[in-house]
Amino acid sequence: MPPAPSKMSASGNRIANETDLIQTYLAPLTRGAPGAFELRDDAALIAPEPETDLVFTSDPIIAGVHFFPTDNPADIAWKALAVNASDLAAKGAKPIAYMLNLALPEPPTREWISNFANGLHAAQDRFGCHLIGGDTDMTPGPLSIGVTIIGAVPTGKFVRRQGAASGDHVFVTGTVGDSALGLRVHADPAAFPHLTADERAFLEDRYLRPTPRLALGEALRAHASAALDISDGLMKDLARLAGSLGLRLDFDLIPLSKAAASARAHDPAVAETILGGGDDYELLVAVPPAAIADFRNAAQAAGIAVSDLGALDANISLQIVDADGTPIAIERFGYDHFSRSAP
Amino acid sequence: MPPAPSKMSASGNRIANETDLIQTYLAPLTRGAPGAFELRDDAALIAPEPETDLVFTSDPIIAGVHFFPTDNPADIAWKALAVNASDLAAKGAKPIAYMLNLALPEPPTREWISNFANGLHAAQDRFGCHLIGGDTDMTPGPLSIGVTIIGAVPTGKFVRRQGAASGDHVFVTGTVGDSALGLRVHADPAAFPHLTADERAFLEDRYLRPTPRLALGEALRAHASAALDISDGLMKDLARLAGSLGLRLDFDLIPLSKAAASARAHDPAVAETILGGGDDYELLVAVPPAAIADFRNAAQAAGIAVSDLGALDANISLQIVDADGTPIAIERFGYDHFSRSAP
Repeated sequence: MPPAPSKMSASGNRIANETDLIQTYLAPLTRGAPGAFELRDDAALIAPEPETDLVFTSDPIIAGVHFFPTDNPADIAWKALAVNASDLAAKGAKPIAYMLNLALPEPPTREWISNFANGLHAAQDRFGCHLIGGDTDMTPGPLSIGVTIIGAVPTGKFVRRQGAASGDHVFVTGTVGDSALGLRVHADPAAFPHLTADERAFLEDRYLRPTPRLALGEALRAHASAALDISDGLMKDLARLAGSLGLRLDFDLIPLSKAAASARAHDPAVAETILGGGDDYELLVAVPPAAIADFRNAAQAAGIAVSDLGALDANISLQIVDADGTPIAIERFGYDHFSRSAP
Repeated sequence: MPPAPSKMSASGNRIANETDLIQTYLAPLTRGAPGAFELRDDAALIAPEPETDLVFTSDPIIAGVHFFPTDNPADIAWKALAVNASDLAAKGAKPIAYMLNLALPEPPTREWISNFANGLHAAQDRFGCHLIGGDTDMTPGPLSIGVTIIGAVPTGKFVRRQGAASGDHVFVTGTVGDSALGLRVHADPAAFPHLTADERAFLEDRYLRPTPRLALGEALRAHASAALDISDGLMKDLARLAGSLGLRLDFDLIPLSKAAASARAHDPAVAETILGGGDDYELLVAVPPAAIADFRNAAQAAGIAVSDLGALDANISLQIVDADGTPIAIERFGYDHFSRSAP
């Protein structure tokens, strides 16, 4: 981790009380959500639309575990909301509101909280939701941001994680592995010196500002038998989607960005980062054979690239093979919060 | 804080992975909530009942701030859910589900997590809700439990915090100050030696196992103009309810338990703890004069004692007077998370 004079910021004047922090910096994020009562009540209200199921997910992020305490507060805020919106994207749901729990190691400076609120504002505008409530605490521990997001999906259209059948093809959106490589660039600017500055910046941005694939919602609801997002690594999340089914994955079918492909060309060990790293927030989608053409068309209409990784098969296990059919062994199958080190 | 060999528990075998913790100890808490998908999905689902608004509130509790890390894990779990259910109680809402975010400083022992799950089970059975989702993380900080609770209220019947009018009477449920005194007993078993062991145990239990006043929901929805729960101290929360209105509060109208009254008789300074302490999770309810008789009857039918603290008045400020009319000055008006010390 880069050295820093203070955990959050050494300069600027600090927020003196909770009400100031909430009313000055957070309450403006509720505009458009009357049920938030401008954060002046004990609770918030949502009047559900008819014919709608509500979808809930909650992924906190903690300094030293999911981000660096010295990161730009606008990036931290973006990521806190994005990782939650991504879970909704995988369910075919549309974000409508979120609760925010801030646990702060010290009263933040006005500069820090202002940047943090700006990052939240940018993210909620992009994802189409509003802040409706939450809580602010001082903590003896690290900065921790707990977001619980609430989404909406037409009744009965929630896309399950379990639901894939043998024969379904697994599609992945976008490109895989960029974020894990971006984390290495972010932690060590000298990493991957053979890449251009633009390529390194691209990878770092993928780590700092993931973009939930919300535009794919309609395609998922209409054509997917199951879906989830890649947060803990391609292989681990693929195993979750597959359940008891298997898949023979040709490594060359995994879509890579130009930067990731170049990194791998210089160092074959990068394959392990691509297979085991997480945080890309791309979607894995199981599609029955009869729906594949329609799914591809719907994804194209939504402007999202999708790649076919192959068919699930009840008679095989999950395996990865190289271009010549040689199995690739990976040591680390994915991320487990009980056996991890700091980012 | 009492000395302890380890932050959570020194004995027993530890949980080795996230899936074991979630599936063995937490998934059983979802029984009765099919939208939780046994915690095997990325998100949970609620199909709202017709003619229902959903109510959301989120109050995390952190070791060293809201409880002692050495506390009984069943008590910690109870409190984590109770403080959130209490916010719903104040809104006239009925708990239906909750999300749980556990941030653990180390993998817990089976004994610890089993007791924690038992405490959650007891609380959710009492409050009438189910676990539907959340997240588990390891953290370099203290144990932190983030609960976001979801309640239901008939459309348009949410009871606001702002809404009291001049002339409305303020009622308080139960007795005030027990929890703050119980905290002193909990931290120092030698506190209040003149009280009986039963009285000290009563106060400590009020601190450890607060009981949300959910049974008052119907009375609130029918008769209250505003309400909130006392989490940050009687005077601070009374000021929130009053808004721009004032109230001349006769200290002797504040309902005290036998134990609290006895503690005050021995030490008049206890009055400050009663006025400024929090965590009782009793409700403050504003009731228009015409509805007072009906409100009292409804509260009695619900089995909940309510006491009239006097009338809100647009022409005065909030003040506290002794039996002879002498104003009582208090130094600390209530709890602020930006200027607190450990519990």
